[in-house]
Amino acid sequence: VKVSEIGEFGLIRLLAAEFGLEYPPARDSRPRPGLLVDIGDDAVVGRRRDGAAVWTTDTLVAGVHFLPERTAWTATGWKALAVNVSDVAAMGATPDLALVTLGLPGQFLVENAIELYRGLREAAKAFGVTLAGGDIVRSPVFFATVALSGWARLTELGQPLAMTRGAARPGDIVAVSGWLGESGAGLKLLLDGAEARTAAQKRLIGRHERPQPRLALGREAIAHGVRCAIDVSDGLVQDLGHVARASGVIIRLDAPRLPLSASLKQAFPRQAQSLALSGGEDYELALVAPPPVIERLLRDGDVPVTAIGEVLADDGQAVRVVDESGREVAVGPGGWDHFRSS
Amino acid sequence: VKVSEIGEFGLIRLLAAEFGLEYPPARDSRPRPGLLVDIGDDAVVGRRRDGAAVWTTDTLVAGVHFLPERTAWTATGWKALAVNVSDVAAMGATPDLALVTLGLPGQFLVENAIELYRGLREAAKAFGVTLAGGDIVRSPVFFATVALSGWARLTELGQPLAMTRGAARPGDIVAVSGWLGESGAGLKLLLDGAEARTAAQKRLIGRHERPQPRLALGREAIAHGVRCAIDVSDGLVQDLGHVARASGVIIRLDAPRLPLSASLKQAFPRQAQSLALSGGEDYELALVAPPPVIERLLRDGDVPVTAIGEVLADDGQAVRVVDESGREVAVGPGGWDHFRSS
Repeated sequence: VKVSEIGEFGLIRLLAAEFGLEYPPARDSRPRPGLLVDIGDDAVVGRRRDGAAVWTTDTLVAGVHFLPERTAWTATGWKALAVNVSDVAAMGATPDLALVTLGLPGQFLVENAIELYRGLREAAKAFGVTLAGGDIVRSPVFFATVALSGWARLTELGQPLAMTRGAARPGDIVAVSGWLGESGAGLKLLLDGAEARTAAQKRLIGRHERPQPRLALGREAIAHGVRCAIDVSDGLVQDLGHVARASGVIIRLDAPRLPLSASLKQAFPRQAQSLALSGGEDYELALVAPPPVIERLLRDGDVPVTAIGEVLADDGQAVRVVDESGREVAVGPGGWDHFRSS
Repeated sequence: VKVSEIGEFGLIRLLAAEFGLEYPPARDSRPRPGLLVDIGDDAVVGRRRDGAAVWTTDTLVAGVHFLPERTAWTATGWKALAVNVSDVAAMGATPDLALVTLGLPGQFLVENAIELYRGLREAAKAFGVTLAGGDIVRSPVFFATVALSGWARLTELGQPLAMTRGAARPGDIVAVSGWLGESGAGLKLLLDGAEARTAAQKRLIGRHERPQPRLALGREAIAHGVRCAIDVSDGLVQDLGHVARASGVIIRLDAPRLPLSASLKQAFPRQAQSLALSGGEDYELALVAPPPVIERLLRDGDVPVTAIGEVLADDGQAVRVVDESGREVAVGPGGWDHFRSS
C-alpha cells in the first residue's frame, strides 16, 4: 500500500495503532505515562522539572545518510533515534521526549513506514525515550528528523552538570569507550555490496546499522567527575578536533593504543587503524578528564574504556596522532600516513 | 556562492555570524541569554522550570509547502517558525527554544540560506523565541524543519493550564480571531502568477507569506478561562472537525457570521465565504468556551474576536455549517454548496 493511497491521517492512524494508541484520540482518552497531552493536539505536553533542558536534533536523508535499497527500514528507524541519544549521552544527560518528522514520497510504502517505526520503538524502549509526537509531510525524498529533549541537573552555581567540548585541560587523559572503526568498516562492506558471510563481517555491518549509544557510560562518567566529552560520529580525529578547538588545547593521540576489535582486524587487517582514526559513526564516547578520574572510571566501569592519549601543555587547538616511536602521523580523509621528516 | 563550495561548517560559521556568534565557539565564550550551553556542542542546554513542557514541530518542503521561485526566502524563514508558534499559541502556552534543521541541495545558494535565517530571526524576535541550534544536512530537495519547545503552568491538580482540542462542551460558543480566508486568497493570487497591484491583493499575499500567529491572544484566552482551542491551519471546517471529534460534540458554524475582510471581499467577491471556511493557513485561533468567558474576551481583548457558532447538545462529532436561514450547507474541498434537500 502506498502512502498516497491512505493519506497523512490514515498513516498516522496506522502508526499510532502500533503504539496501542487510537487516532484521532477518543474523547477523554488518557495520555501515555510521561505525557500530559498526547498526540492529536496542536502540541504534546510533558512535565518539566527544575534543572537544565538538553536539546538535540539529527536527520537521515535517503541516499545521503543511508542506502534504502541495502538497509532494513527497522535499522533506519533505530539509527534515526540512536544518533540523537548518542548526543545526549555525550553531554552526560538523560533523554526524555522525542518528536519524529517523516518526509515521505507519495509512492513510499506504508509497510516500510511501519517497519521504520518498529525500529524507532525498539530504540525508544532501549534508551527510555518517549516518542511523543511529530509530523508527517510529503517530500520528493525520504527523510527522518528526530528532535530529542533530555535533562541534566544543575550545580549549585546554576551551571548544568554536563560534559561539554570546551572543558579539556592540560594534563587530562583522553579515553574512548568500546572499539573504534567498526562502523566505518561495516559501511565499506555494505558499499561493496557483497553478502556478509563471516561472523566478523556481520558484526561490523551490525555496528554500522544498529549503533549502541553509550548512554549508561555518559551518566557514569559524569557521576565520576568527567566534564569533557564528545561522541565519535564524524571520526575520532575530526571529533577530538572539535574538543581541541573548543578547549584551546593540543591533544596527543597514541595510535598504537586505539582499541581495535578482533573482527575489525580480521576483516580489514591493513586499514584497521585508519578506520579507527577517521571511520566515523561508531557512536562511542571520547572522554577527557584528569588521570585520577579516568583511572576510577577504568577500574569501576561496566563498559570497556581505553586511555588513548593526553592533553598537552602546549598552546594550540589541534590533534596530533603519534606512532609507537612518538613520531607524528598525518591523518588524511582516506586514512593516515607517516609525515615525511622535514 | 553555492553551499557545496563552503561546506556545512562554512555555512554554519556564516549563519552564526548573522547572530553575532563565533563558530566554532571560542574557548570560554559565553552562551547567549536563555541558554546554558550554546551551539557548537553535542546539544544545546537551556534552563528548566517547574511546570509543563510544550513541544511541537512543523516542516516546509520546497515545491510542496511553498514555491521557491515565487517566495522570498525571508518569508519562508518567517513562516517556518511562525507556523510552530501558532501551535504553541493554540495551547495558550509560551514558546521558548527552537531547533532548526535545514536540508539543502549542494547547489543551494548561501545567500538564500542567509535570507532564510533573516526571516527566522525576525520571527524569533517577534515571538520571543531563542533559535537555540539545529542541524544542516545535504538533501536533494530543500526542507526546513523547526522543533519548538514552550512551557505552560500546571494547575494544582498537576494538569497543564493549556487549551486542548478535547475540551469543547455543549452550550459553548465558538469564536475566531481576526479574519478568515485571506491566506488562501493570497495563495490563489500567487498561483495565478499575476503581479499584485491593489492594496487588497498585497495584503492577501502578505497574510499568506507572513502569517501572524496569535500568541498574545492565546495567553489572554487562557487567562480568561478558555480551555479549548485550535489554530486555523488546514481550514476552519477541517480544524473544527478535529475539535468535534476530540470532544465528541457537534459544532454549528453560522456562515453569515464569518469575519470576512474588506480586502478579501474586494479581491474575491464570490469566493470569500468559501475561502473563509476551507482556505487554510490563516493561523487565526478558534476558541471554544462558555458564553460568559467568550463575552469577557470580546469585551476586554486587544485582538478582534468574532463569535461564529455554538457547540450543540446533540451527540456526535461533526461540524455543521448553516446559512442565514439555518439551512445546512456542504463544504467541499473546492468550496461549499447548499445541501440538496432530501
